[in-house]
Amino acid sequence: MVSTVTTAPARLALHPDRALPLDPRQREIAREIYSHTATLPLICMHGHVEVEAFAENRAFADPAQLLVVPDHYVTRMMVSQGMTPESLGVPRVDGGPVETDSREIFRRFCSSWKLYRGTPSRYWLEHELVEVFGVDVEPSAETADAIFDRISHRIAQPDFRPRELLDQFRIELISTTDAATSRLEHHARLAAEGLGARVIPTFRPDAIVHLDRPTWRADIAELAEVAGIDTGTYAGYLAALRQRRAAFVAAGALASDHGHLSADTTPLSDTVAAELYVSALRGEPVSPAQVHAFAAHMLFQMAAMAVEDGLVMQIHPGVLRDHNDAVLAAHGQDKGFDIPVATEYTRALRPLLQVFGTHPGFRAILFTVDETVYSRELAPLAGAYPSLRLGAPWWFLDSPEGMRRFRESATETAGFYNTSGFVDDTRAYASIPARHDLSRRVDAGFLARLVLEHRLRVDEAVETAADLAYHLPKLAYAARDQA
Amino acid sequence: MVSTVTTAPARLALHPDRALPLDPRQREIAREIYSHTATLPLICMHGHVEVEAFAENRAFADPAQLLVVPDHYVTRMMVSQGMTPESLGVPRVDGGPVETDSREIFRRFCSSWKLYRGTPSRYWLEHELVEVFGVDVEPSAETADAIFDRISHRIAQPDFRPRELLDQFRIELISTTDAATSRLEHHARLAAEGLGARVIPTFRPDAIVHLDRPTWRADIAELAEVAGIDTGTYAGYLAALRQRRAAFVAAGALASDHGHLSADTTPLSDTVAAELYVSALRGEPVSPAQVHAFAAHMLFQMAAMAVEDGLVMQIHPGVLRDHNDAVLAAHGQDKGFDIPVATEYTRALRPLLQVFGTHPGFRAILFTVDETVYSRELAPLAGAYPSLRLGAPWWFLDSPEGMRRFRESATETAGFYNTSGFVDDTRAYASIPARHDLSRRVDAGFLARLVLEHRLRVDEAVETAADLAYHLPKLAYAARDQA
Amino acid sequence: MVSTVTTAPARLALHPDRALPLDPRQREIAREIYSHTATLPLICMHGHVEVEAFAENRAFADPAQLLVVPDHYVTRMMVSQGMTPESLGVPRVDGGPVETDSREIFRRFCSSWKLYRGTPSRYWLEHELVEVFGVDVEPSAETADAIFDRISHRIAQPDFRPRELLDQFRIELISTTDAATSRLEHHARLAAEGLGARVIPTFRPDAIVHLDRPTWRADIAELAEVAGIDTGTYAGYLAALRQRRAAFVAAGALASDHGHLSADTTPLSDTVAAELYVSALRGEPVSPAQVHAFAAHMLFQMAAMAVEDGLVMQIHPGVLRDHNDAVLAAHGQDKGFDIPVATEYTRALRPLLQVFGTHPGFRAILFTVDETVYSRELAPLAGAYPSLRLGAPWWFLDSPEGMRRFRESATETAGFYNTSGFVDDTRAYASIPARHDLSRRVDAGFLARLVLEHRLRVDEAVETAADLAYHLPKLAYAARDQA
Repeated sequence: MVSTVTTAPARLALHPDRALPLDPRQREIAREIYSHTATLPLICMHGHVEVEAFAENRAFADPAQLLVVPDHYVTRMMVSQGMTPESLGVPRVDGGPVETDSREIFRRFCSSWKLYRGTPSRYWLEHELVEVFGVDVEPSAETADAIFDRISHRIAQPDFRPRELLDQFRIELISTTDAATSRLEHHARLAAEGLGARVIPTFRPDAIVHLDRPTWRADIAELAEVAGIDTGTYAGYLAALRQRRAAFVAAGALASDHGHLSADTTPLSDTVAAELYVSALRGEPVSPAQVHAFAAHMLFQMAAMAVEDGLVMQIHPGVLRDHNDAVLAAHGQDKGFDIPVATEYTRALRPLLQVFGTHPGFRAILFTVDETVYSRELAPLAGAYPSLRLGAPWWFLDSPEGMRRFRESATETAGFYNTSGFVDDTRAYASIPARHDLSRRVDAGFLARLVLEHRLRVDEAVETAADLAYHLPKLAYAARDQA
Repeated sequence: MVSTVTTAPARLALHPDRALPLDPRQREIAREIYSHTATLPLICMHGHVEVEAFAENRAFADPAQLLVVPDHYVTRMMVSQGMTPESLGVPRVDGGPVETDSREIFRRFCSSWKLYRGTPSRYWLEHELVEVFGVDVEPSAETADAIFDRISHRIAQPDFRPRELLDQFRIELISTTDAATSRLEHHARLAAEGLGARVIPTFRPDAIVHLDRPTWRADIAELAEVAGIDTGTYAGYLAALRQRRAAFVAAGALASDHGHLSADTTPLSDTVAAELYVSALRGEPVSPAQVHAFAAHMLFQMAAMAVEDGLVMQIHPGVLRDHNDAVLAAHGQDKGFDIPVATEYTRALRPLLQVFGTHPGFRAILFTVDETVYSRELAPLAGAYPSLRLGAPWWFLDSPEGMRRFRESATETAGFYNTSGFVDDTRAYASIPARHDLSRRVDAGFLARLVLEHRLRVDEAVETAADLAYHLPKLAYAARDQA
Repeated sequence: MVSTVTTAPARLALHPDRALPLDPRQREIAREIYSHTATLPLICMHGHVEVEAFAENRAFADPAQLLVVPDHYVTRMMVSQGMTPESLGVPRVDGGPVETDSREIFRRFCSSWKLYRGTPSRYWLEHELVEVFGVDVEPSAETADAIFDRISHRIAQPDFRPRELLDQFRIELISTTDAATSRLEHHARLAAEGLGARVIPTFRPDAIVHLDRPTWRADIAELAEVAGIDTGTYAGYLAALRQRRAAFVAAGALASDHGHLSADTTPLSDTVAAELYVSALRGEPVSPAQVHAFAAHMLFQMAAMAVEDGLVMQIHPGVLRDHNDAVLAAHGQDKGFDIPVATEYTRALRPLLQVFGTHPGFRAILFTVDETVYSRELAPLAGAYPSLRLGAPWWFLDSPEGMRRFRESATETAGFYNTSGFVDDTRAYASIPARHDLSRRVDAGFLARLVLEHRLRVDEAVETAADLAYHLPKLAYAARDQA
């Protein structure tokens, strides 16, 4: 590592114009546009905060467990420079020893601050440190302990509980992500306590549509039990899925979520699908091609069910999960070793769109981590099919440059109104306001450019900005006939 | 749809600096560069205006039929938000009922104005409304009728006929696109009436080189009749193609145009090609792989003929036409449901380039709707092979951001002088001046940046801008030995 | 070609702010940042200057032989506009006649100056002409002879020898590229004369791992002789490779270099690899698939050896070499007809990364000519695996726009500290300072934007700029345990 000479700790503060364009006139217009969106409520329809957090509403453990250990954006950067996951407190699957001194973990993180230069993690973390925790010095080896204490103090306060933060963060609506086999008991508790319309579930059937998951058969058994429907046949499997979708709808769900390696939606014949299902259920070997074919088939089936029950499909393809077997074996999934691959949409979605693409009751939102498809495939598709919306930049692309490139690449063909508006995607609850705020700033900057280039009037830009920040996400996830 | 509160109708005017860069100094230099290209004549070598329009020179029907119904850029955006093609007057193949009230169609379009924010359609339409029709209010539900009347008035005037507009639009040369089986009778009439050198045909053999077109056998029969050559054998087929190319050359054609799904140019042996041809002619089943192989083979054959007769090949690959069968069945082709796919050029063009790439009598212009190939494949190819020119950004990419990205991605490797200069591509005749004007503005902005970054002198920028706007398109389509 | 009216020769001078951003405030900050890197020493770890040049230290032949004939960037641009390689003095493989009048070649080049507008070649050449040779007029037909004389005068001076230029260019460390079969005699001479630590070799085994190279069997025989190890068996082949690697390490090498068509690293079983090797050695036919498989296997083997001996792997995939057989037959390799192809890394590198990716003794630097992989694959991989660094923009992408896009696409996911810092890649010795200088300017501009957008403090930007220019390249090529 390149060494840095440090003197007095640098002051940490948020400049009011951060992430706005640098040209003075463009910044002035962007500031004006942003002023109309800065305080709009947050719609958080693709969150990964655990529902338990809201149901139990306990205080967060400590700064390292809140900001470092569970955030694979944060840990992977230190791992990429040679630190072990163990040294950062990332639990081992085998229960083996990892660093348990949260203060020490936090020190390692603060000493690595330089690694985050130019990354959105740095941007979000600065926002959180200042706005949420009132920290005013830059993280470093020297300041780590003081910052740790400051945050510890803040999270111990009674108003720093998950439910209380909903108000502080201006979250109007937040969705959790829930396995298809979830009994939704936490959501039931939230409903009973008056939060049912504010914290809603999202139906995620990935585990039960991928025949090669180690837990697939156990999950199918669990599905039968939760649904109260025999899943020993393919027809029973579909019926159980329908039952669970209905339960999610009853619990307030507006959407389903689908993380597939490919966007393929080619349906199988019922006979072939049924044979494949039963064969896998018997524990017979299933080839990678069969796993792929069944997952594609089930994406098509989910669309068919969506037409019936109105759940909006969120399709998130193109990530090769768990690139490194050793990291997976040692620490489990979601540890920063999920790597994107080139993803095709035009041909892959065609079977689904042929049948449901112009159906007035169907809605799908398409996400990608492959930027090449914005202008080539996704904007042309979303600019033609009434059922489609183009999702916000996702994952690695949820960043200042990523969001700017998205608007520049997608808008000319899809317009603004075939996009979903901003959708955050994080496990890091405390980063949610920072993420929405950043997207509002970047969109304001893009719109300000259109204004200065006389491609849009400023009143149109202001209206569009509010649509992107707030109204479009609400519309995108509303049932089609209400939109 | 997000609702808008409307008060007095917004004024519509074209700012003289529209689409120029926002930085004040860059804008000043761009303005200077643009001033040297703004009034140059238009070279329109890839138009899709119907030749009948010029031959018959009738008045346009009405504003909806001129600006909305036939422009799939415009209709697809409304369809993508849930309107039916029928409600926009798009004819049904079965002659079924569609909206016939042009005033009502125009109202729907004006009420949807917001959808076009940030799109090139909005930019072109504003230009047309103000410059061509003298409209001075923004389209909206409230202003639709008044605008309809204004345009109706203008298109009824005797100077608003297709031929008269050639002068008004400063069009020096315009090419129509004509099937290989065209008898070119309209072009003959134009020639007889003194317009033969100004409105020229382009040879488009797509229908007769794709064995899977429903009309293929009928078109082959038509080819035989038009050419006066028996197409019952493969040799006769090639001879008939040569005859038609000669007829096009005699009618003033400078180019052929090739829309293929893939850029593959692998030739077949004569024997295999002949067997495939005869088999298809007999109505025997042809596999998709065979269709592809024959189309690739014929691209190679077209290059061989181009070396003989000097027609410049325009290659437009990478669009999956008619993505939605139901839309195709209901409304026919070119209805906004043509979606790009990733397209490979390096290996695909190699067979052709091995044989003709350095031939002094050969010229091909390469287009794409896959931006990823600009820096990776097309600029390196055009920066090496003397026969190649890199075409202007095409279709969805013919836009401010699309053109900017093209210059930024292609120039460093291909230079300016291995590009074709601006080539428009539209059925919307009234939008042609807007399209050329926009490209001149965007190029002026790009060149102004190079000047300010001291990578180019301003006199070089001015000269380059004029080359891109006018001289290079003329050169690109001139026979190689005249260039 | 479009004609240019020329009057007095244009003055050639380097503006101190060239290639800095055009916004005045951004430029001011960029200038400040650049001032801290402008005079840092050069680390040149991927050069292609011939080691003979340093060993023999003779004067360069003449301006055309120095600047035009051997630089395929320069000649391909003229060839792309119809000049023959022969007319530019590019030697023929068959010894056939080519232009030998260097003054005439140089005239052709100067008359073509316009073709280089907007290209990095123009930028580098201007830098060289002014800074290295003291030329003060723009190249043109009129000025060609005077410039030729000026350069001739300069290169005849005793301080303009390769070794003397090391100081003038501030080159701290330069690596040549050497075949695995090199006896390293020139490096031995340099070591004996005190330059062994400044001019070091790089181990390039491409010729002996690609079974389809025409010279493969001869090279294997040569390998046996140089290594003193029988290469008649696969085990002997591996042992000989190890021996050569050790010899390179002893001669100061820090890295190996691997130019493969694909990034595939799938290992074969020892048995299969041995059979393939022996079969190829017997001259038996080897299929393209087998060639590919063996090359991929050997990339994996090279990683295994790298863990043992510490050489850093540089992986340069994705170029289809010698696209045109006729050019290859007439003029040999590296004549501007090497064209990139889409390149996959996520799956291709997985076999290697599964085994060595988190090994503390392994380091690989990944290069690409396919920009689409920056944000999609390379930044996520380099942002996770501690062994990986993302190389500087390579070949066609080593340009102002290319470098800017690289920083914009890769930084947010990989950070700055998972990149290699600047690595030049050229045969054109005199262009090395220009290339480093340009990268420092472009990085300064990018960093200045982050500062103005309040995403980075200026002191951080200054430190980062110095790291990118000097410290990171040194670290990237240091053995992992020293980094």
